[in-house]
Amino acid sequence: MQPLQQEPTNYRGFRQPGIRLTEPMLPNVGRPDSDLERPRMYAIHLFDKAHATMLTECGLIPREDGIAILRALRDMERSDADDIRFEVGGGMHSGEQYLIRKLGESVGGRIHLGRSSGDLGEVAMSIFTRDQLLKLIRTINDFRLSLVSLAKNHITTIMPGYIMGQHGQVTTFGHYLLSWVSTLERDVERLRTCYRHVNRSPAGAAMMTGSDFPIDRHRVAKLLGFSEVEKNTFDAILSRDRLLETMSALTILYSSVARWSDDLLLWSSSEFAFLEIPDRFCGTSSIMMQKRNPYPPQWAKGAAAEAAGGLMMCLMVERGPTGLVILERRYSRRAITSAFTSLLGDLDLLQQMVTATKLNAATLHDRAGEYWAQATDVAGLLVRERALAWRTAHQIVGILVRLSYERGLRPYQVTPEMLDEASTAYMGRPLHLEAHKLQEALDVTRFVERRSLYGGPAPEQVLQQVAEYIATLSADAEFVETAERTIHDGLTELERAIDHLIQSE
Amino acid sequence: MQPLQQEPTNYRGFRQPGIRLTEPMLPNVGRPDSDLERPRMYAIHLFDKAHATMLTECGLIPREDGIAILRALRDMERSDADDIRFEVGGGMHSGEQYLIRKLGESVGGRIHLGRSSGDLGEVAMSIFTRDQLLKLIRTINDFRLSLVSLAKNHITTIMPGYIMGQHGQVTTFGHYLLSWVSTLERDVERLRTCYRHVNRSPAGAAMMTGSDFPIDRHRVAKLLGFSEVEKNTFDAILSRDRLLETMSALTILYSSVARWSDDLLLWSSSEFAFLEIPDRFCGTSSIMMQKRNPYPPQWAKGAAAEAAGGLMMCLMVERGPTGLVILERRYSRRAITSAFTSLLGDLDLLQQMVTATKLNAATLHDRAGEYWAQATDVAGLLVRERALAWRTAHQIVGILVRLSYERGLRPYQVTPEMLDEASTAYMGRPLHLEAHKLQEALDVTRFVERRSLYGGPAPEQVLQQVAEYIATLSADAEFVETAERTIHDGLTELERAIDHLIQSE
Amino acid sequence: MQPLQQEPTNYRGFRQPGIRLTEPMLPNVGRPDSDLERPRMYAIHLFDKAHATMLTECGLIPREDGIAILRALRDMERSDADDIRFEVGGGMHSGEQYLIRKLGESVGGRIHLGRSSGDLGEVAMSIFTRDQLLKLIRTINDFRLSLVSLAKNHITTIMPGYIMGQHGQVTTFGHYLLSWVSTLERDVERLRTCYRHVNRSPAGAAMMTGSDFPIDRHRVAKLLGFSEVEKNTFDAILSRDRLLETMSALTILYSSVARWSDDLLLWSSSEFAFLEIPDRFCGTSSIMMQKRNPYPPQWAKGAAAEAAGGLMMCLMVERGPTGLVILERRYSRRAITSAFTSLLGDLDLLQQMVTATKLNAATLHDRAGEYWAQATDVAGLLVRERALAWRTAHQIVGILVRLSYERGLRPYQVTPEMLDEASTAYMGRPLHLEAHKLQEALDVTRFVERRSLYGGPAPEQVLQQVAEYIATLSADAEFVETAERTIHDGLTELERAIDHLIQSE
Amino acid sequence: MQPLQQEPTNYRGFRQPGIRLTEPMLPNVGRPDSDLERPRMYAIHLFDKAHATMLTECGLIPREDGIAILRALRDMERSDADDIRFEVGGGMHSGEQYLIRKLGESVGGRIHLGRSSGDLGEVAMSIFTRDQLLKLIRTINDFRLSLVSLAKNHITTIMPGYIMGQHGQVTTFGHYLLSWVSTLERDVERLRTCYRHVNRSPAGAAMMTGSDFPIDRHRVAKLLGFSEVEKNTFDAILSRDRLLETMSALTILYSSVARWSDDLLLWSSSEFAFLEIPDRFCGTSSIMMQKRNPYPPQWAKGAAAEAAGGLMMCLMVERGPTGLVILERRYSRRAITSAFTSLLGDLDLLQQMVTATKLNAATLHDRAGEYWAQATDVAGLLVRERALAWRTAHQIVGILVRLSYERGLRPYQVTPEMLDEASTAYMGRPLHLEAHKLQEALDVTRFVERRSLYGGPAPEQVLQQVAEYIATLSADAEFVETAERTIHDGLTELERAIDHLIQSE
Repeated sequence: MQPLQQEPTNYRGFRQPGIRLTEPMLPNVGRPDSDLERPRMYAIHLFDKAHATMLTECGLIPREDGIAILRALRDMERSDADDIRFEVGGGMHSGEQYLIRKLGESVGGRIHLGRSSGDLGEVAMSIFTRDQLLKLIRTINDFRLSLVSLAKNHITTIMPGYIMGQHGQVTTFGHYLLSWVSTLERDVERLRTCYRHVNRSPAGAAMMTGSDFPIDRHRVAKLLGFSEVEKNTFDAILSRDRLLETMSALTILYSSVARWSDDLLLWSSSEFAFLEIPDRFCGTSSIMMQKRNPYPPQWAKGAAAEAAGGLMMCLMVERGPTGLVILERRYSRRAITSAFTSLLGDLDLLQQMVTATKLNAATLHDRAGEYWAQATDVAGLLVRERALAWRTAHQIVGILVRLSYERGLRPYQVTPEMLDEASTAYMGRPLHLEAHKLQEALDVTRFVERRSLYGGPAPEQVLQQVAEYIATLSADAEFVETAERTIHDGLTELERAIDHLIQSE
Repeated sequence: MQPLQQEPTNYRGFRQPGIRLTEPMLPNVGRPDSDLERPRMYAIHLFDKAHATMLTECGLIPREDGIAILRALRDMERSDADDIRFEVGGGMHSGEQYLIRKLGESVGGRIHLGRSSGDLGEVAMSIFTRDQLLKLIRTINDFRLSLVSLAKNHITTIMPGYIMGQHGQVTTFGHYLLSWVSTLERDVERLRTCYRHVNRSPAGAAMMTGSDFPIDRHRVAKLLGFSEVEKNTFDAILSRDRLLETMSALTILYSSVARWSDDLLLWSSSEFAFLEIPDRFCGTSSIMMQKRNPYPPQWAKGAAAEAAGGLMMCLMVERGPTGLVILERRYSRRAITSAFTSLLGDLDLLQQMVTATKLNAATLHDRAGEYWAQATDVAGLLVRERALAWRTAHQIVGILVRLSYERGLRPYQVTPEMLDEASTAYMGRPLHLEAHKLQEALDVTRFVERRSLYGGPAPEQVLQQVAEYIATLSADAEFVETAERTIHDGLTELERAIDHLIQSE
Repeated sequence: MQPLQQEPTNYRGFRQPGIRLTEPMLPNVGRPDSDLERPRMYAIHLFDKAHATMLTECGLIPREDGIAILRALRDMERSDADDIRFEVGGGMHSGEQYLIRKLGESVGGRIHLGRSSGDLGEVAMSIFTRDQLLKLIRTINDFRLSLVSLAKNHITTIMPGYIMGQHGQVTTFGHYLLSWVSTLERDVERLRTCYRHVNRSPAGAAMMTGSDFPIDRHRVAKLLGFSEVEKNTFDAILSRDRLLETMSALTILYSSVARWSDDLLLWSSSEFAFLEIPDRFCGTSSIMMQKRNPYPPQWAKGAAAEAAGGLMMCLMVERGPTGLVILERRYSRRAITSAFTSLLGDLDLLQQMVTATKLNAATLHDRAGEYWAQATDVAGLLVRERALAWRTAHQIVGILVRLSYERGLRPYQVTPEMLDEASTAYMGRPLHLEAHKLQEALDVTRFVERRSLYGGPAPEQVLQQVAEYIATLSADAEFVETAERTIHDGLTELERAIDHLIQSE
Repeated sequence: MQPLQQEPTNYRGFRQPGIRLTEPMLPNVGRPDSDLERPRMYAIHLFDKAHATMLTECGLIPREDGIAILRALRDMERSDADDIRFEVGGGMHSGEQYLIRKLGESVGGRIHLGRSSGDLGEVAMSIFTRDQLLKLIRTINDFRLSLVSLAKNHITTIMPGYIMGQHGQVTTFGHYLLSWVSTLERDVERLRTCYRHVNRSPAGAAMMTGSDFPIDRHRVAKLLGFSEVEKNTFDAILSRDRLLETMSALTILYSSVARWSDDLLLWSSSEFAFLEIPDRFCGTSSIMMQKRNPYPPQWAKGAAAEAAGGLMMCLMVERGPTGLVILERRYSRRAITSAFTSLLGDLDLLQQMVTATKLNAATLHDRAGEYWAQATDVAGLLVRERALAWRTAHQIVGILVRLSYERGLRPYQVTPEMLDEASTAYMGRPLHLEAHKLQEALDVTRFVERRSLYGGPAPEQVLQQVAEYIATLSADAEFVETAERTIHDGLTELERAIDHLIQSE
């Protein structure tokens, strides 16, 4: 009888009939993950190198075999390692596949000692997520910087603010933009918490209990640039909160991006006409040739919905007892990969677009005072000048506004007499206010200037906020740099350790 | 003509026909939020007191009016303030409603100066979420402590671990329980990040731009026990990432709780029979009188799904431009209130149940070795004893396992001869292993002991993990205490400030 | 030893310690469903009566006991049966609870023969869903009728149609409203398919296999007004597609309602000013007294999101093997009950609001021609008059539109010369079109009239659509009546059968 | 100045700078949909042909141009039309792109007269969805047929049924399988309702109002094999309930498939050991060589979660006013395409797997009687033999079961004496039942046989259900055939009409 051991030259992996199983798989039953895992192939490659290094250093595999393996892995890098891995097949196991083909099973078959598909998958996800998170935080930081600069240019750009789609109060575009910055600041905090969780090495946890060989988990973690080791091996592989946390941090961020996109779409409508998005961000129609359609906000909104659907899917995938759900997770990985890619692209486009967009400042200013967004301050005036209770003032001005609409008058056209009419209707007596005070209360620029409370839209307050947001931004920028340095140091040590082993031969 | 100003005795709020609007609302158009907001009424009450204190201290309302307001608010507390608020109606505006009824509009109508429904709603949500988060973290901490104690008692309770529903490897119940602790640790980290975000006072932001009166936002924040002020007033009211973050942190936690619940349900089935959940946690059936149905895991699973659906709803509610979505958010608040309530109850039940559950240690032990969960270590033996490559050993043992099933043999019944048969089939030659070594490799207790790598299930490793988890737990317990102290200090200062004002009269 | 059998007077149900279980339940473990099931109590009551009738008729319980039970159930109806059931506790089992208290266990304890909590729950849900579906279809039918009438009044009310938020083409309000009717028609078709599925009686299926007693399932189905029996007893209780189908039909309907609500909100903004929603549908603000906030569209949007979240929850609840998920389904039932209640209320409000809303026809007309929504027809003109290919005409008019914007001209201000300029720029030669033809092409009323293709907005086409929509509406109205008659006949037969038994005594 | 009209040879589409817009698009702003639309390219091609035929027949374009266009479209078919379309770019507009390149703008530029990207997209989706739905119904029908056959072979294969994971009652594998058939029957009904809605032609609706040219919508509908025309043109393009309905019908179906997959996974565990899934459906592990992991149920569960997430995404995408959401819908199309593909593959695999799976009938039988799933019938015996009320019998047997567990006895080991003990404990007196009657009540085969009520598991009842399910299946098979014939007839007429035009030249 022919031995079952395969010829290395055409090694086809460990699931061959005659070993544990008697039949070959039906088509469509096994679904190679090479395609799905392509964005994480570099991380698999790193893990192959770090694991082989550790095995060799700890003497868990023969030194000469370890060195041969490391040499071969280095060889892969001469051309595109991802392509080579794709060609030899095997997805996560492409390293072993390649090594066995090249060095034979007796050498190449040693790479998988003390690890499993479980930690291969988790290490790859951790490295990938970690790297994407840093890229994302960097992108957000750039965006924050742009927004802060833009905000500084718009501390006196008056605009209406909307509540329930109605004119609410008057603010400035600068103040509005800082609300983006403020939200993005919290997004980065969430992403940093998430980073702390994925920046722990699951390597060595195998599928749940680790190995009976004395694997050095700290060494591998170090060589992969991780800050810590994920302690409990059961948890390291079979818990999924890290993935859910990542997906929900991305979804929350996207939810804000979608909201801002809706703002920009609405304001670029003919009816609002607050801003003009340059043509290079627009498409047109195959029949309605008049149309200028801003595209980036639509992409962002679509992808935000996709992220939310993806989060829901990830949550649903995980239902069931621990360890039951394994293959299903490929769907979750696809969702997370897609969300990162979309977000990085859409944030970049949005930043470009916001920076390039032209504001119609005059329209914004006129609109701010046209539909009584400044009404609150007429009530404030009554409180100050006539010592009325807020509620009394509020009701009188409510009547005034109604009268102005009934008579087809704009805010600036109302008079002290109309105010007296309202006041009399409400409490039986007039107020005799001076006309210039009423006009000042109606002035939208003064409206903003009067809001000099902490965090408000008054120009000097906005500038103070700018200063505070820049301080946090610097701290976050430093975080990215430190994190990147740690990774870089780890990976440098990995290469050095390989050099050291190879040279020691 | 009769003035529109209402008689205080039966004040019905600011939306009366004749002011801004001409018609009374149709039934079912206005939907009072008294019911929904009941769990947050205490926070509204606090805000009423803190806001009135600040207004008085800053001289924004007449001192005597401020004192009268504070006295009246204190009066409410003699009986159940929530009930009184419910009776006077008005939901978030129940304070004003009560004060106007009691003190007349000219005094009571001053409470709302410089704030809006916007900050009322947000302040209430922030206080409520903050308080619930602390309660939740405290509950999780208690749970972690129970689990750690339980784990210590089970460092040698052998059990099988499952992958894709199949026997994977051998571990201990202690090691498994620590995977819960590890996950809960990350949950607390997420909740703490979330806490940092909700523990910032939106008070004074009104609806988006704050007030034209020089409101002291820091003072109010301090009196409400907040650590910081949420800077940008636009962001403070109209961003919703804080709510989404809370909801997703709860959902992620619940997702793990649901998974563990599924473990317990499965293991309490007749087929698994790993554990016995005491009768006090069980129901039975109206016809199938033989049934003992554990209830808590089912409740937890249902509520976990509800939380996920609630998260989805919150995400969907927020679609659209900034400020458009206001009333819709009541649905989101309901979801978040419900998720907190369920989680606190379900975690408490689960803790009681897990602690009270009896393990069938003998069954667990037998089952651990019955379906080849220890197979990996036979391959490890071949690597060690015969210097085989891992992959070679893996394939040989794969054949061995198949042979054992084909011949109806249990793992402990296989012999060195069968191993030789497998080895010969694979690579054309036998291995001649000693029987006692094979038996030792098959021993499930030794399996666990051999896994003494960092984070593994070997008893001494589990004990070390216990020590590390207790350290983090202490830090988290301290966090709760510090946070509670800060809140307590703020609220104490609030009462002292009110005393001071009242006494100064 | 005291027998365990309880005194009837204070019967507390079948789960007492000492029977199958040894301990009383901990608080919060059993969670009575009385509150949740209140909207379905009438259905439980009907099932109790029909089941007892069948048991008596078939001789499965002693005739005199059956009659005593039926008499007692009839007695409950003298006051509010739901209240009585609530008081005796027991939720779904309140019938038995009441009967045992009243008639003793030896008589009252016979009601549950041959059924289980399983069919109690499913029968109640089927009856409830069936009844709510008919109510909903009736509500939608009323709405369709209102919309069709309204549409007839607006066949010449010109308005712009939007694509990607930009002016797309010109249509009429009548044509737009018929798009609602068309969608609602499909909603009714979906609800009718759903009705067919829930209108099958699960009664007698017990928990999955029915009973060892010769229960007459067809008889009970008949007496409850069902059209058919749900055949396979396993499927009747343990499949959940009926619930998911109901929930998704409601969600899809709500999704359209939310979209239309967004239309109305947008169009009632100051910038659009297309319509005025009467004050009785509006609220105002506690500080921004100028605000008129339409409430019903916001409620609808919130509830639509809740339905979507509820659907997601129902889908998640059902994960896991058949029969595992039972108590969790209470959450699903809550979601479905809430969705029906909200939808019925919100559709009613929306119908009232749409009917009462005043259109600003002049604004709509002006706006329709102001931003080149009619551009397409200038290209059509070129195709007709100059035999140009569509694409050529499209590009020339594209240039024309751009020129008009660059020069600050309105559509009606462009001239044949500008068209020649555009044409020359595109293809090197002018078109020499007559000015009056260009003006006609630009006329928005003519735009609509020219669209006399089937289904288009030309007035006579809209009238034809109206006729067709009314035809379908009649068929759907007839469906409701027939369905209601069938139910009524069944329930009448039930009362007659009870009369017959009681009188035969 | 150079005319802007492009050289046909390298035509790049209608969005060139200098027409409506002044700048070329930035990279990543326009995102070609060629890739996404590939599965629908054949439908675009059909629409191109049908539209050109109608334009020519109606004399809306010059006859010779129409014929040239049709010839060219036919030419595309000589090689792979999809590939050619992909190469010329343009996605949905690949037809025009190709025709202009081949015939010049003056001829090829005529194809788009009277239609828009709107109806291109919708027609393609309708044709695609219609075709996929028929394919899916056919696949389900095949599955139903297999299941019915399998069920017939298992009418006496006794097995336990589970409720809340506990042994509930006894049934047969045949009865269980018919619950699948019953559910699938409803799925087909839902898909047929959905089919009715997508089988209406939106062609000619352009973007919302159709064309000013007298387009014959009925002719195009006929030539594309549609049964009807979607009346209202606004609705035809801008409503999205059809898409949501499709997505939710697929999700509901998948939800059941996931549940059944969980059954199979659970039952193939070592603890249950109810069935053996052949090796060709299984994978193994890279370290746990003992594992036999069934793959198809995991794929199905993952894809079911993906469908649910996709549904959620589609619902979220659609938030906002009518017509705002256009590009976002690409995400929805991707989800629907993916759900169809997965479902068709997974249903096929599942059918193969279920058919090939070996049942361990002896285990199933033994297990059915081992944990008191037959207890109900002991109570039934007491009702029959001793005229006890059901509740009394139920409680006595509850005590009996408890006693048996406390004494470590199997059901078959209990005696009339123990029953008397239970009876005495409950009501103070014994029952004196004959032993052989008790044994018969405990017999699981008799349990099933006794359930001969309509829809129950008794063998003859299952056979009757089989007959009824086959009748419905035939009707559904006929539906598919009729539907396919209608499509075929339409497409045949299209080719004949083209032949006729070309030959008439």
